[in-house]
Amino acid sequence: MTTCGSILWLLAHPDPGSLSHALYRGGLQHLRRSGARVAGQDLYAQGWNPVLSEDDTAAAAGATLSDRQHRATLDRTLPREVLEHQQLVLDAQIVIVQFPLWWYGMPAILKGWFDRVFTNGFAFGIRDADGHVRKYGDGGLAGRRLLPIVTAGDRAGALGPRGISGDIEDILWPLLHGTAHYTGMLPLRPHLVSSANHVDAATHRHHLRTLTERLDTLGSETPIRYRPLHSGDYTTTHELRPHLRPGQGGLAIHRLP
Amino acid sequence: MTTCGSILWLLAHPDPGSLSHALYRGGLQHLRRSGARVAGQDLYAQGWNPVLSEDDTAAAAGATLSDRQHRATLDRTLPREVLEHQQLVLDAQIVIVQFPLWWYGMPAILKGWFDRVFTNGFAFGIRDADGHVRKYGDGGLAGRRLLPIVTAGDRAGALGPRGISGDIEDILWPLLHGTAHYTGMLPLRPHLVSSANHVDAATHRHHLRTLTERLDTLGSETPIRYRPLHSGDYTTTHELRPHLRPGQGGLAIHRLP
Repeated sequence: MTTCGSILWLLAHPDPGSLSHALYRGGLQHLRRSGARVAGQDLYAQGWNPVLSEDDTAAAAGATLSDRQHRATLDRTLPREVLEHQQLVLDAQIVIVQFPLWWYGMPAILKGWFDRVFTNGFAFGIRDADGHVRKYGDGGLAGRRLLPIVTAGDRAGALGPRGISGDIEDILWPLLHGTAHYTGMLPLRPHLVSSANHVDAATHRHHLRTLTERLDTLGSETPIRYRPLHSGDYTTTHELRPHLRPGQGGLAIHRLP
Repeated sequence: MTTCGSILWLLAHPDPGSLSHALYRGGLQHLRRSGARVAGQDLYAQGWNPVLSEDDTAAAAGATLSDRQHRATLDRTLPREVLEHQQLVLDAQIVIVQFPLWWYGMPAILKGWFDRVFTNGFAFGIRDADGHVRKYGDGGLAGRRLLPIVTAGDRAGALGPRGISGDIEDILWPLLHGTAHYTGMLPLRPHLVSSANHVDAATHRHHLRTLTERLDTLGSETPIRYRPLHSGDYTTTHELRPHLRPGQGGLAIHRLP
């Protein structure tokens, strides 16, 4: 057991009878027995509202929604549930987001958790002592780890390096790079449970065992390493310098060699 | 003006004073003056509920949520607003989804529109006469076109082929390929409005003009062409056959040459 420190585990599946819920319950139990401090948050059970609207920043002035969100964050006039979830994130060394892959992304209830909780001035939009905006490899959540646990109906091959659905790490680029790396978090390789529909008892046990083994290494495993913005690898227009991976495109060029 | 037939235009931005709303109003007006039939749907204004839950399939039996959704779709026991939006999609030749890029994806209110409206048995999970599931290049929405209109705070370079945020077509892979192509729709190149915060009047006019020019070509422009599943390019495990783009990975291998 090398996973230590506090863990925040968000679940976004509507069916308490699903494989997802069983893995959530089993995973939490395993972590707690291992001595970890874990905050479990079942977004469906708590009726989380995922719609970022002007209501969230009603007390703040500013020209754009983003400006108003920044103001409301600094003034701490965000809604109470947003402030509470921000504190949960601050208290965690590892954030786990568990969800079924719907339309190759997060269910709305979880996407909207990021929309509302990862506000301007909290997760991003923060400057360092030199006045540079801290983003892509640095940010308001620097140093924390993020693990996606994903259940998918697709077979494993379809979500692999040459699979028709795209590799799971490319599919989840907006979460791994655009959200975790962007805010300074360290994205961990997604824990993928494929062919997740109509699972028999033996497969169910296999999935739970594989998950608990993975949970034991979260604190020590090597994260996905994307290039930081301030590494010198990017031009002032935020494009990869021509001498790096010359002539190439695609998401893989942004990984550190 | 080569755009003909019916258009469904969904907007997902909370601020009526935003550039997004101005482009929406200007775009709808332009299309209507051009003689197109357009259904505009402002998801925030109508208070769209984006959370797919067991409530949507309360009248249906089945082992999993997906099974229950399939049953409820066939029995037409889905909620009234879901049935209405499905009809809007069926009535459209072109579906436009307009949104600000939040965490490199759709705002929750729009993601959840797909979660709830693109049901099993409606958009996917449909078999052809030979018993094959119609997906990836075929499906319940075959032949319709899908255009994303995206406003982003990022500068253009950051969202280009070598940009740090990833190319916009890779970022939107779950929408372009995983949703549009998956259901048989023809994905159009995203219409990207970058550096969209704090736009002056001249830039505002420029964006509106560029948009209306684009709208005029939607019916005739060449869609992004991904490989269909049933083209023979994929193995039975849904991986690209070894002789195609040998040794390569990344999302680009799934484009037709």
